[in-house]
Amino acid sequence: MSKLRVLVWNEGRHEKTDEAVGKVYPEGIHGAIAGHLNKQDGIEARTATLDEPEHGLTEAALTSTDVLIWWAHMAHGEVADEAVARVRERVLSGMGLICLHSAHYSKIFRTMMGTNCSLKWREAAEKERLWNIEPGHPITQGIGEYFELPHTEMYGERFDIPTPDKLIFISWFQGGEVFRSGCTWERGHGRIFYFRPGHETFPIYYDANVLRVITNAVRWAAPRIILPTDQAPNVAAIEPLP
Amino acid sequence: MSKLRVLVWNEGRHEKTDEAVGKVYPEGIHGAIAGHLNKQDGIEARTATLDEPEHGLTEAALTSTDVLIWWAHMAHGEVADEAVARVRERVLSGMGLICLHSAHYSKIFRTMMGTNCSLKWREAAEKERLWNIEPGHPITQGIGEYFELPHTEMYGERFDIPTPDKLIFISWFQGGEVFRSGCTWERGHGRIFYFRPGHETFPIYYDANVLRVITNAVRWAAPRIILPTDQAPNVAAIEPLP
Amino acid sequence: MSKLRVLVWNEGRHEKTDEAVGKVYPEGIHGAIAGHLNKQDGIEARTATLDEPEHGLTEAALTSTDVLIWWAHMAHGEVADEAVARVRERVLSGMGLICLHSAHYSKIFRTMMGTNCSLKWREAAEKERLWNIEPGHPITQGIGEYFELPHTEMYGERFDIPTPDKLIFISWFQGGEVFRSGCTWERGHGRIFYFRPGHETFPIYYDANVLRVITNAVRWAAPRIILPTDQAPNVAAIEPLP
Amino acid sequence: MSKLRVLVWNEGRHEKTDEAVGKVYPEGIHGAIAGHLNKQDGIEARTATLDEPEHGLTEAALTSTDVLIWWAHMAHGEVADEAVARVRERVLSGMGLICLHSAHYSKIFRTMMGTNCSLKWREAAEKERLWNIEPGHPITQGIGEYFELPHTEMYGERFDIPTPDKLIFISWFQGGEVFRSGCTWERGHGRIFYFRPGHETFPIYYDANVLRVITNAVRWAAPRIILPTDQAPNVAAIEPLP
Repeated sequence: MSKLRVLVWNEGRHEKTDEAVGKVYPEGIHGAIAGHLNKQDGIEARTATLDEPEHGLTEAALTSTDVLIWWAHMAHGEVADEAVARVRERVLSGMGLICLHSAHYSKIFRTMMGTNCSLKWREAAEKERLWNIEPGHPITQGIGEYFELPHTEMYGERFDIPTPDKLIFISWFQGGEVFRSGCTWERGHGRIFYFRPGHETFPIYYDANVLRVITNAVRWAAPRIILPTDQAPNVAAIEPLP
Repeated sequence: MSKLRVLVWNEGRHEKTDEAVGKVYPEGIHGAIAGHLNKQDGIEARTATLDEPEHGLTEAALTSTDVLIWWAHMAHGEVADEAVARVRERVLSGMGLICLHSAHYSKIFRTMMGTNCSLKWREAAEKERLWNIEPGHPITQGIGEYFELPHTEMYGERFDIPTPDKLIFISWFQGGEVFRSGCTWERGHGRIFYFRPGHETFPIYYDANVLRVITNAVRWAAPRIILPTDQAPNVAAIEPLP
Repeated sequence: MSKLRVLVWNEGRHEKTDEAVGKVYPEGIHGAIAGHLNKQDGIEARTATLDEPEHGLTEAALTSTDVLIWWAHMAHGEVADEAVARVRERVLSGMGLICLHSAHYSKIFRTMMGTNCSLKWREAAEKERLWNIEPGHPITQGIGEYFELPHTEMYGERFDIPTPDKLIFISWFQGGEVFRSGCTWERGHGRIFYFRPGHETFPIYYDANVLRVITNAVRWAAPRIILPTDQAPNVAAIEPLP
Repeated sequence: MSKLRVLVWNEGRHEKTDEAVGKVYPEGIHGAIAGHLNKQDGIEARTATLDEPEHGLTEAALTSTDVLIWWAHMAHGEVADEAVARVRERVLSGMGLICLHSAHYSKIFRTMMGTNCSLKWREAAEKERLWNIEPGHPITQGIGEYFELPHTEMYGERFDIPTPDKLIFISWFQGGEVFRSGCTWERGHGRIFYFRPGHETFPIYYDANVLRVITNAVRWAAPRIILPTDQAPNVAAIEPLP
């Protein structure tokens, strides 16, 4: 069986402008995630960033991608609409999409959801506890009743999303908020997972539970079919008409 | 109680280019629907068309609209992206949206759904029977187990939409197809209803059942709250943090 | 317009066996809730308890009930299966059902859900904050972004329920758990709301927000149709068969 | 990897009382389905019937079953409530359940759904066309846009079920009805699939498409976790309480 082809996309700006980010993620957040995925059986991960030609999201790049992971924070507006449209089409055709943390406000996530995907936030390095609501779901395999992150940025409800197909994680925050931190949807033939944890300087993407969830989500979001949906065929009647 | 303010939008091109349309709908499809709604208790309907300035979809027009009905067929691409963005924002804030027939391929419906909303079609003036799957839903009040349209354009599955919150009608077509002809969703604080029946020359919008469903849907889609969702407040902790 | 007929059902055992309960709720929890509802426009509430003949849930009592509120805690097993079957049938026909707090483990709620409705719990008089996830929903009308209860019994996830149609409230608990505290479903033609707050000695059912939610839920759960669903008619073909 | 253990359950009464059934299904419907499944990779099927001790649904039989297929028609009421309760508990713990055709009215299906699962019906040997609404779903792998059955019993809407998680097939009937013929739900940790086709004398369970769907459904419904849900632990606080 051929390997699952994952493309880890990062706008990659923090890494260039903020020294602290470079210290935590010397190869970028995309590099850290892809590095972990490349150690997993049956997964082959590569990376792309905003400043590459066509943001590294060419038709060819997408056609050879089974699951796209998206990380972005400060430069959502710089992603070209044409690139967003290509990704959208590929997701509807069956490619998986995993949006991490601040990618809640990315063009591609908002486009797929049809909503604003807004939320409350606070940076206070507080404790987060993610409760596993669906212990039978492939995405939570190997995760216990809950797991904790000692220092996180807070995201709070109301999260402006369509009702998820499955609500996988609910977060408890030390400061008093809650959040739907793991949610799945299907759009066209593609599967979408939003996963809240992440930050540019907290070492979230080295946490064993976070990495396990991302790895599980990659396997869950793998295409089950690749079939373009943008077509409106004029068809003949199957039954005789008068 | 003040009246529900409905805006019936029509691209209004068929009416200008095709004599047959003018014969069936001398005041346009928008005129026929608005005319019916204006005879209903508590509803006040006006119209707008593509060729008006800003397509008649100015900020002021939308702010004074509770429910927007959308009909379009041949000129989807001429609707300006800015107008679509304004309508989208207003729906997310709580305005109702009813998309009729070929509006399945309108920019606004595809934007709200996040999918391509593609389908099969055939023009053979065949019989359609719409089965009422949710007799308890406000949209089907006064509708029996099913109703028939003697001559319709066929729309067939697969309809590329997100799973509806509620599937209200399923159509049976004489030529052998089926279709999810009445579907509801919520996005942000707004309610959305897609209703399949309609055509530019078949007199669908004079049918008593079709008009009743549209009237019911207007009442169902009325705003329950108006609250913009595109905001991401930085909030203080409610509980003491260390 | 005639009034909404609400039946507030309570097993009513704590009131008899525990002096502390009688002090907080001298007329029983059912009396406190019915008393509040009877002060609301368009609502007429009466009560019934476990120890009445047929638990006060006769066919006649149910036929004259639009919305049934259920409170129970220690005697779930004493409710006769025949009574549960009658309530179930009436809900499927269109009657609303509101299950409060420990009614999560009642026969009727488990029967309607098809699941065990199990959860974690702790009695430590801790703080609960209920986040309002659906500010546009009729059930949250007049409720702010969140409300707090200073001393509550904790209920924690995983709550073994089918995915709700709408998740209305998520609770944050001081002790570190979260809970889906307000959930809606439809079964047959009836609407069901589960609402977590409640206790036999904490004065939860005097809290203004709790009472407002219950009142809103009564209006939301009112029958939209009364139509028995348990029938399997043998029907003639509509279209000619060969 | 060990094989998926499938138990094909049949009330097995038609086979004894109706000679025509025995001609079509000499080893019973259960025998026909189990025979097909036993030819598939990684699947091991056995059978049980109503007249065996405990209907062949002992605790031990269920514990060694990954997916239970249920066929029944004329003797739903003879299934003991204790057996239904055991099957229900096992499904909530993670076992898959596939209900075929007239099993829509079985105790176990109605119990899992919480509704009456009623529908219209007609025996006129008419044509049915099942439209594949979810071509990307594992259950429709290898199935085209639609498939036909030349002679079937008709089942028509309204089908009294909770809104399915996924609506997989919609049937078109020659006589004018439609039906939600393939539906999925999750309850507890178990997956449930209802599949309409079937009959005691039409040779439906020899049809290649029907058999493929059942085989796919067995693989889809395989347990992802086995974890009993009927427990309500009293837990200590994770965070310090005052």
